Amino acid sequence: MIKTPYLLFLGDAPDGLAAKVAQGIKDWRPGNCVGQFRMEGCKADLGLTDMTLAEARAAGAETLVVGVANRGGKISQAWKKVLVMALEEGFDLASGLHNLLRDEPDLVAVAQATGRSLHDVRVPEVEYPIADGVKRSGKRVLGVGTDCSVGKMYTGLALDKSMRAMGMKSTFRATGQTGILITGDGVPLDAVVADFMAGSIEWLTPDNDADHWDVIEGQGSLYHVSFSGVTLALIHGGQPDALILCHEPTRTHMRGLPGYDLPSLEALRDTALPLARIANPDCVVAGISINTQHMGQAEAVAYLKELEDRMGLPAVDPFRHGADRLAEALAAL
Amino acid sequence: MIKTPYLLFLGDAPDGLAAKVAQGIKDWRPGNCVGQFRMEGCKADLGLTDMTLAEARAAGAETLVVGVANRGGKISQAWKKVLVMALEEGFDLASGLHNLLRDEPDLVAVAQATGRSLHDVRVPEVEYPIADGVKRSGKRVLGVGTDCSVGKMYTGLALDKSMRAMGMKSTFRATGQTGILITGDGVPLDAVVADFMAGSIEWLTPDNDADHWDVIEGQGSLYHVSFSGVTLALIHGGQPDALILCHEPTRTHMRGLPGYDLPSLEALRDTALPLARIANPDCVVAGISINTQHMGQAEAVAYLKELEDRMGLPAVDPFRHGADRLAEALAAL
Repeated sequence: MIKTPYLLFLGDAPDGLAAKVAQGIKDWRPGNCVGQFRMEGCKADLGLTDMTLAEARAAGAETLVVGVANRGGKISQAWKKVLVMALEEGFDLASGLHNLLRDEPDLVAVAQATGRSLHDVRVPEVEYPIADGVKRSGKRVLGVGTDCSVGKMYTGLALDKSMRAMGMKSTFRATGQTGILITGDGVPLDAVVADFMAGSIEWLTPDNDADHWDVIEGQGSLYHVSFSGVTLALIHGGQPDALILCHEPTRTHMRGLPGYDLPSLEALRDTALPLARIANPDCVVAGISINTQHMGQAEAVAYLKELEDRMGLPAVDPFRHGADRLAEALAAL
Repeated sequence: MIKTPYLLFLGDAPDGLAAKVAQGIKDWRPGNCVGQFRMEGCKADLGLTDMTLAEARAAGAETLVVGVANRGGKISQAWKKVLVMALEEGFDLASGLHNLLRDEPDLVAVAQATGRSLHDVRVPEVEYPIADGVKRSGKRVLGVGTDCSVGKMYTGLALDKSMRAMGMKSTFRATGQTGILITGDGVPLDAVVADFMAGSIEWLTPDNDADHWDVIEGQGSLYHVSFSGVTLALIHGGQPDALILCHEPTRTHMRGLPGYDLPSLEALRDTALPLARIANPDCVVAGISINTQHMGQAEAVAYLKELEDRMGLPAVDPFRHGADRLAEALAAL
């Protein structure tokens, strides 16, 4: 569990896209962000107050979050200087970089000397159990995609936001590094050892109030041969009561797999639902979330309308239209 | 890759069952075994020549394989004495124990001093790639089960044996610890990190002659919620041309999951085949392997006959009747 609130480290980001993790934290958990720290030449700007380390500590910040991709596959000495000073100022550090903070001897030594924590959210910090498949109390919803990177995390965060706004009890359960940095905890599922994948998701989504929803962040796709096992572990460990089908309609092949076509939403439904019912016989498909970023407004609306008629399910782009109709569909279950 | 041939260490096994790993090696790869090493009070006997360490080295043994379960969750000092002496005599050590050889400082120190290797087959020794899904040359067959522990490894080993006896090109590809000890290499799939599961199976079953079959050892079950993700990674990484359905008909619930019924063989077929066709559109179900150990001879024969009529596929118990009919079904594809 990463201590909040955060100071968001944008480093020397060459553009806004390089700081998309920080942007996600600011968009979804603005209350967790006291400010941003930018180095000379930084081209990203979240619109938060620029703060020195000391100012951010005085404003209550507990953790400096590396919310930016690094260049050249190593943590530069210029970054190191800031990170070491942050530890000395009393910050914990959190990062989703491939290069682990814990593999840097200087950061480890200073963290030990100052009694601070280094959180590498790509690496599990918990010994997860093997899944036991026992039915848990409370409700769970999971996004399943026709492909990787079609907007499953965004869908989950938007759904959680809509459900809370409607007064429903909801918790977003992160299963990837960005989601973990946004919420401060979760399971980095792609880094969990095979035997413990489903168990880690049971651990993440324990017994809860009967009217509480865990909104579980989806990963991979049953149709993506590189990562489909991760997806099935998520379905069986999460034992969802409801699935949201997620899709990006303009993609021409599976991400990273040029020889593989995307399935139809009907095929995804007919594959995912019977598998989900192994763990939870009452599971239903509750709605569809479409990433229409590569479509015009009119085209997107027409596509969603056609989809609703065809599949008999609410279909929204949560970025364009919010996720309220998906939340309503869950409330109606 | 573990060097062969082996001296099989049976320790102080309280009965034959405790030495079942050693029994499997002796049954399936007798040519890999120069003899057995038994301590005082050992109640297991594989019928191999009892040898001292020096005698086994003189007979060509390269690796002492711990083919026995230990008691009390630790490697006893009595075992250690033999293991240390084996390293000093020039043996490598190989083990599938939960307690890792590499976690024992004395074994590590002696192995370093003598230049010998410690193989813990529960732990990956390779950095596997992420799967790329590219179609590979050669043929592959995979056993998929209605449940865990229904005889998938046995089926694979028997099938490999039958195929070789028929003059077909075949390689058994181990994906679990016992299989790895039997053949000397493989992937300990349940210990692989999630993102690399499918890639590890692509690595294990590379391009091969067009008429060569990889017989891939199955793991888990699509219907076993604790391990289903491992199974799907195996299906998508292995891109099998043929599936063998594996089943144990007398089981009353899924292994370790009292609340879960076993699926029918028809349900398994209808779930596994469409998933396999995502990676290999030409995949077929080629046969059925039934573990009839809890049935009488007449009951078993009647059950298999009824199954063949019902499903239109060859159905055998490879332990009772051999796997020739499954091999013939593959040869006919």
